[in-house]
Amino acid sequence: MSAAMFDFGPSLARDLPPAAVKWSGFPKYNFVGGNNDAARVPVDELIAASTAVLEREGPTLATYGLHSGPLGYRPLRDFLVAKLKRDAGISCDADEILVTSGSLQAIDLVNGVFLSRGDTVVIEQENYGGCITRFARLGVNPVGIPLDKGGMRMDALANALDDLKRRGIKPKYIYTIPTVQNPTGTIMDEERRRTLLKLSAQHGIPIFEDDCYADLIWDGKRPPAIYAMSQDHNVVHIGSFSKSIAPALRVGYIVAPWTLLSRILPLKTDAGSGALEQMVLAEYCAKHFTTHVPALTRGLREKLETLMEALAENFGTAAEFEDPKGGIFLWVKLPDNVDTMKLYQAALAAGIAINPGPEWSVNKEYSRSRIRICFARPSRRRCAGGSMPQGVRRSDPHR
Amino acid sequence: MSAAMFDFGPSLARDLPPAAVKWSGFPKYNFVGGNNDAARVPVDELIAASTAVLEREGPTLATYGLHSGPLGYRPLRDFLVAKLKRDAGISCDADEILVTSGSLQAIDLVNGVFLSRGDTVVIEQENYGGCITRFARLGVNPVGIPLDKGGMRMDALANALDDLKRRGIKPKYIYTIPTVQNPTGTIMDEERRRTLLKLSAQHGIPIFEDDCYADLIWDGKRPPAIYAMSQDHNVVHIGSFSKSIAPALRVGYIVAPWTLLSRILPLKTDAGSGALEQMVLAEYCAKHFTTHVPALTRGLREKLETLMEALAENFGTAAEFEDPKGGIFLWVKLPDNVDTMKLYQAALAAGIAINPGPEWSVNKEYSRSRIRICFARPSRRRCAGGSMPQGVRRSDPHR
Repeated sequence: MSAAMFDFGPSLARDLPPAAVKWSGFPKYNFVGGNNDAARVPVDELIAASTAVLEREGPTLATYGLHSGPLGYRPLRDFLVAKLKRDAGISCDADEILVTSGSLQAIDLVNGVFLSRGDTVVIEQENYGGCITRFARLGVNPVGIPLDKGGMRMDALANALDDLKRRGIKPKYIYTIPTVQNPTGTIMDEERRRTLLKLSAQHGIPIFEDDCYADLIWDGKRPPAIYAMSQDHNVVHIGSFSKSIAPALRVGYIVAPWTLLSRILPLKTDAGSGALEQMVLAEYCAKHFTTHVPALTRGLREKLETLMEALAENFGTAAEFEDPKGGIFLWVKLPDNVDTMKLYQAALAAGIAINPGPEWSVNKEYSRSRIRICFARPSRRRCAGGSMPQGVRRSDPHR
Repeated sequence: MSAAMFDFGPSLARDLPPAAVKWSGFPKYNFVGGNNDAARVPVDELIAASTAVLEREGPTLATYGLHSGPLGYRPLRDFLVAKLKRDAGISCDADEILVTSGSLQAIDLVNGVFLSRGDTVVIEQENYGGCITRFARLGVNPVGIPLDKGGMRMDALANALDDLKRRGIKPKYIYTIPTVQNPTGTIMDEERRRTLLKLSAQHGIPIFEDDCYADLIWDGKRPPAIYAMSQDHNVVHIGSFSKSIAPALRVGYIVAPWTLLSRILPLKTDAGSGALEQMVLAEYCAKHFTTHVPALTRGLREKLETLMEALAENFGTAAEFEDPKGGIFLWVKLPDNVDTMKLYQAALAAGIAINPGPEWSVNKEYSRSRIRICFARPSRRRCAGGSMPQGVRRSDPHR
């Protein structure tokens, strides 16, 4: 780099996020990120699927969108129509599904169709950190609703909606992860879903249902999707194959009535998501999805048990948590005097990555002594802390 | 759909683009879209690549970004470092390359880092239609510079930059497709690239170089990239595998100094582009890129010759065009009294899709009687119009 290097600074847009730092590899004990279990990637079946679909349809890769148009590979949408009906009770057509580059692009597209600077949204108080940073970037005000063991509290939601109404504010949507909530792992039961729908209808506010973890329930039993229960079709639903198959395959989807999907589609300016991944997933899932997922969740459950045992052994009553019914993360309460924004930095310096609560909540005080631990990627040995440096393994969580 | 269907209208964001219409398949004679030649998709080699890379690295799909971090699959970036050096004269590190979901996401990311509402950009007057609609959506004013047989005219650029300076306007970038320009097919020679760099340096304006068609030159000879020629590193460069391998594989890239790339990366909020497509491309390209591309371009050249012969036979002197040195489209001038916004609709009604000039230019008057014809996807027989309905084949282009 010469001294005469051009300064891009004056040319940049206003309000950019901070610069990225260069990636330097993973920490040894990596308990962050929605990663999955490497041992459960169905490699042989993916190879068979890839070979079969390329032999049959490889030349269609020469055309944007294959022969399926802009909504995504038709056999994948057909699989989803059947899967959503079977697992979530959703009745929809293939033309009410838009395949996206993971559910993260789905979130960006749904935000794009609803949100303008200055808007308000209602969300679960503890939430996916990426949503919280998105709202900050968009200049949107998230109103957090506290959760209990059954997910978003409906009494608190009713109060918040009434309060907003009194103040003349109409939120753009109510965002919820009702089925294995991130980070709390809670599942909203059917009755509460009904109440949520009633409240949203009363106030004329759409619901944004994020079901991206819903496949990972230990006993495979889940309540119907809110989308399926809606009478007046005021719900937009998103999902993903990241958690059920593999996160590096960037395939998610949006389900919405065409009146809404037709407004979302023009915001997807990338000429479609990767076709090979869609083709391979469609081919694979049609044959193996229903047998793969239970095997995957059995493995996740084993890792979770190892983690919970290790926490009990090392932290005793200092680490409080509910045993979740599914998912890939554990939401842990440490003693009140623990500041997890400090803890996570100290842990990282020792090669252990965790999510500090305040990055996963809009209530910084409530979340101050909480952490999220993702357990799907590390081996059971690492979940047990078996090879941790001694000083770390028995470390005082109060620091 | 019940009568009580929820109305999403009041909840939508301001200034959305118009709703999409439902896709109803391709027209029979499809001369639009940057599609490729289905017969040239290297299906067997892609199957071999997919099998090899999944056998070797399949389990890494369990981790976002594989083991390569957020910039993209490292072996693909390593391939690009060597390819860009060999073909375009670019010296860069793997950490100066961000893999994107096609060059369209690359365009959106570069626009995101530079542009705010009310900004001005300098572009080639005839241009990719998707860029023109993007500027309209972003509220950005594109100043078009006319082209001649050698691409963007430097006398016109110098005048436009001086004029903008007098008016106190500093454009955010100069966008150019210098190597097989879209839609004119022109290639900017090295001297003109030098002049462009001089002007951009004088005015302190970055250059945005879009090289997505640069692999498709009949004789394989191209000038060095503007990025490679820049002394003070004021260029951001993008490219794609869509044109050289297959457009449905959504893999493109951005090359930029880290000072700029570190500001672009946080705008890519999709947790990475599809890993399987990156893995398969890296595996395939390392072995076959240099033999595949000349075979592909030979086939494209044959189709172009068929098209040019058919135009000469059917339109005679009424269709004027330059024989392009590469690419997948022909930019055709029809007689002055032809309004191609009407022509394309009449053609579409007869099953023939073409791009009307005004959608591919910011000078609506100049482009009024011009059309873009993409020739890579249709068979040679269709390029020849051999099976067109008689009334269409011999149609009067003046209507």
